Amino acid sequence: MTVAEDSPSLQRPWTEVVAAKRAIREEHIKKPRDLSKTRRPVINFTELADIEPLTKLYQSGQASVQEVITAYIDKACDAHNKTNCLTEICFEDAMKQAKSLDASMMEYGALVGPLHGVPVSLKDQFDVEGFDSSLGYVGRAFAPATSDALLVSVLRQLGAVIIAKTNLPQSIMWCECENPLWGLTTHPLNPKFTSGGSSGGEGALLALNGSLIGWGTDIGGSIRIPSHMNGLWGLKPSSGRMSYQGVAVSTEGQQHVPSAVGPMARSLSSLSLVTKAVIESEPWKSDPQLPPLPWKENEFQTFSHRPLVIGVLLDDGVVKVHPPVERVLKETVEKLIDAGHEIVEWDASLHADCISIMDEYYTADGGEDIRQAVTEGGEPFLPHVQSLIDRAPPISVYEYWQLNKRKIAAQQAYHTMWNEKRSPTGRCVDVVLMPTMPHTAMTHRSCRWVGYTKVFNILDYTALSFPAGKASKHDIALQGYEPRNPNDAWNWQRYDAEAMDGHHVGLQLVGRRFDEEKILGAATQVEQVLRKA
Amino acid sequence: MTVAEDSPSLQRPWTEVVAAKRAIREEHIKKPRDLSKTRRPVINFTELADIEPLTKLYQSGQASVQEVITAYIDKACDAHNKTNCLTEICFEDAMKQAKSLDASMMEYGALVGPLHGVPVSLKDQFDVEGFDSSLGYVGRAFAPATSDALLVSVLRQLGAVIIAKTNLPQSIMWCECENPLWGLTTHPLNPKFTSGGSSGGEGALLALNGSLIGWGTDIGGSIRIPSHMNGLWGLKPSSGRMSYQGVAVSTEGQQHVPSAVGPMARSLSSLSLVTKAVIESEPWKSDPQLPPLPWKENEFQTFSHRPLVIGVLLDDGVVKVHPPVERVLKETVEKLIDAGHEIVEWDASLHADCISIMDEYYTADGGEDIRQAVTEGGEPFLPHVQSLIDRAPPISVYEYWQLNKRKIAAQQAYHTMWNEKRSPTGRCVDVVLMPTMPHTAMTHRSCRWVGYTKVFNILDYTALSFPAGKASKHDIALQGYEPRNPNDAWNWQRYDAEAMDGHHVGLQLVGRRFDEEKILGAATQVEQVLRKA
Repeated sequence: MTVAEDSPSLQRPWTEVVAAKRAIREEHIKKPRDLSKTRRPVINFTELADIEPLTKLYQSGQASVQEVITAYIDKACDAHNKTNCLTEICFEDAMKQAKSLDASMMEYGALVGPLHGVPVSLKDQFDVEGFDSSLGYVGRAFAPATSDALLVSVLRQLGAVIIAKTNLPQSIMWCECENPLWGLTTHPLNPKFTSGGSSGGEGALLALNGSLIGWGTDIGGSIRIPSHMNGLWGLKPSSGRMSYQGVAVSTEGQQHVPSAVGPMARSLSSLSLVTKAVIESEPWKSDPQLPPLPWKENEFQTFSHRPLVIGVLLDDGVVKVHPPVERVLKETVEKLIDAGHEIVEWDASLHADCISIMDEYYTADGGEDIRQAVTEGGEPFLPHVQSLIDRAPPISVYEYWQLNKRKIAAQQAYHTMWNEKRSPTGRCVDVVLMPTMPHTAMTHRSCRWVGYTKVFNILDYTALSFPAGKASKHDIALQGYEPRNPNDAWNWQRYDAEAMDGHHVGLQLVGRRFDEEKILGAATQVEQVLRKA
Repeated sequence: MTVAEDSPSLQRPWTEVVAAKRAIREEHIKKPRDLSKTRRPVINFTELADIEPLTKLYQSGQASVQEVITAYIDKACDAHNKTNCLTEICFEDAMKQAKSLDASMMEYGALVGPLHGVPVSLKDQFDVEGFDSSLGYVGRAFAPATSDALLVSVLRQLGAVIIAKTNLPQSIMWCECENPLWGLTTHPLNPKFTSGGSSGGEGALLALNGSLIGWGTDIGGSIRIPSHMNGLWGLKPSSGRMSYQGVAVSTEGQQHVPSAVGPMARSLSSLSLVTKAVIESEPWKSDPQLPPLPWKENEFQTFSHRPLVIGVLLDDGVVKVHPPVERVLKETVEKLIDAGHEIVEWDASLHADCISIMDEYYTADGGEDIRQAVTEGGEPFLPHVQSLIDRAPPISVYEYWQLNKRKIAAQQAYHTMWNEKRSPTGRCVDVVLMPTMPHTAMTHRSCRWVGYTKVFNILDYTALSFPAGKASKHDIALQGYEPRNPNDAWNWQRYDAEAMDGHHVGLQLVGRRFDEEKILGAATQVEQVLRKA
């Protein structure tokens, strides 16, 4: 814990800490922004989802960073007022940095880097000097970070401007977005629905054009799920590809189901550009946890162009997807076939073993880490957290080692299965296409099944969620479907064609370990196919 | 455990299992080898330490694999009779494979791969189909592997011939070589001395020309220590560089202080050739535990040629090295300076923290894994093993996770220290040169301090031990030295200039994670410097 002994959070009831933190947030959000020195924008900057057109505006003098950041701050405030997505507010620092970037452009006539003036938001785990990394825990409030996370430093060096940090659920281990410190984040389309999680603040903020690039973490789907629910692009890389240095997390030290840092964006081009730029900064030179894996441009280009072999999974055999997800997946597959890609049915028979192993990891400490973090601040346990920490007693280190052996065997089995799979014409499978979740955004506290995403955390595979379509009230549920188990029944009963009309449907594109270039390349082809239709 | 229920080891007292296993070994060793069909060699094949001259003999028809393997089997038997270094005997299979390689050469006129006909031995952890991987545990006897380890398959594909498996200590976690199943392995120069460990069978066998390439594992110095004590070259790569698939180990599942697979050889050129060949087989395509890191020939060439900046550590501040080690290190440094390399003093102040963390990992399960493995067979615990499993009670998984956090912080601190270190002319440090051990080969059961090697296991750095010189009875001990602690006193009292006269002195060359090409490159320059002198 980073809370100092004289920290206000230890001297006051938890509700007072919450009130104090929220008051600071409100103060920064309400403060009138100094627009007098900036020109009135003639371009609607926050509509631009791609980085390159924006940085071209800077280069050609058609926009200043101060104008753009001002516009984004306005949008971020609107997004927050609508969804309660922000936690730490970095507007003042952002404006200072914007000014400095504009001065640099005036002086040198060049961008400082590929992310010059790009507004960036961060899930409330990434250390930003001078701001808390509370993770939504009251006990971690008023303990500002003394330096930037490595990724934050890298982003700044590339020219990015950090504008705010965003909300996440208590424990972080959940696919919705609520904690006693910052409250509940809601979906941009309907306040009764969740924006997803755990990177749910990012999901809402980006969907409302309050940021251009968001950074999340994913240990079970936490980047992909809010991306799916909010019509965004989200990449969960393999865990060694992006640095976790200076990024706090629940159950820190549990490295066997690795949490991965990754970007979220409103366009694929932004997602690819930022991934490439960060990898090309060679973060392994500063962070010894990362293997030295340079960006493989050749692989990106190859998979951006050559016909793909795509494994397709519609149903994981546990929780059947809602009708809109099924329709969108099937439509996408049809379009891919029409575009000349080859399809092969994928097999989820190994998923159950993976999920059973990782569930044991999540609670291997008997919930001690999360219990201590919540107890320290004194706030109540939310129901999903209480249920998580009560789920199982701690296991011994010896049993933990046996679990590690099972994990390695499960990883090997999946890898071998993939190696042996052949398409009808005898080719190997490049990527797998499948649902991100069995449903679109749901009402609060009703998500239960993250089996479609979490399996790729224990495998540590690269997985990207992309916006593939939208739910329609005309997506009629199969009559007489007999659910296979309580989770399946729960999910099936929650389908509401009217209420979910217009909700985003994301799909996952999955590669193996360190397949980031392959997945981003393949995604460009999928995007083209979806655009044409 | 892989012991089947009807395994003889569960039906008999442990001494009978031992007798049965040793009888099988003796039978294979005593069997007269069929030399009638092979020509009498005119070249002393087992004197060749380099792979390339050997494979050239095959290519030019000056030698057959059968001749060479026969000669090596003879030498291996001699080595075993002298030192008790072998466990599983694969001579028959080796001769069959030799015949098949000769037939292939006759038919196609080409080598099957860069290791065509190269005799290889394996520490008794690597699965070889049809042979036990007992690890020296009685309870694992008579449970033959049903397939080859991935590395063994790769070696065979490259043309290598597996001739035997070699001895290791009970628990594997020790720097000497003794277990109740196979007995004590002795040093080639003197039976009262240890050949080192844990890959001590390899050390003795290679030193007596009974094999050309040996494979060991290293979780605290187990490749480097026997290399040092036997005048060999031994490479401990970073743990993700070589596959552990199909390699059994004690405390399996403990992945935080990773054990690494690596080669041992009688020459640097052999060591480099085999490392390159194995990496170029792209083992990550079969083993998902490995990051995809191709062989970097450019880096190997660069560090083979350009002047180096070498950090030098003589004393880790805990256990002072014996006089011959000090003299050989200082002489080596002088020669490197003369050759134009730059030297900078290295700092061991971070080693104590690393060692304290890793000692907690070794016994995090309270010794349960090793206790079960020994108990299963019923053999006695050797003193070093008893002491290891009694050292500490088990810790909880929560505490284990806190230990992981300390480990990551320690790795970061060492990495940052290295990044910040500058030579007198302001250059960054390429590699570190230091002792492998504070002493040469010692009498049995008297080694205690592996602090010089083990620190690079928790850091997961690349480290190579190379033969740098020999002890001399003229290496006089400093009079009046006041030991700093009991380990230092123990070591200092054990220096015996007369008894250690002529013992090998190895030194370590250390790089950071995944620096295999850099270390092998730098080693070629060090070798040239040593040769010239």
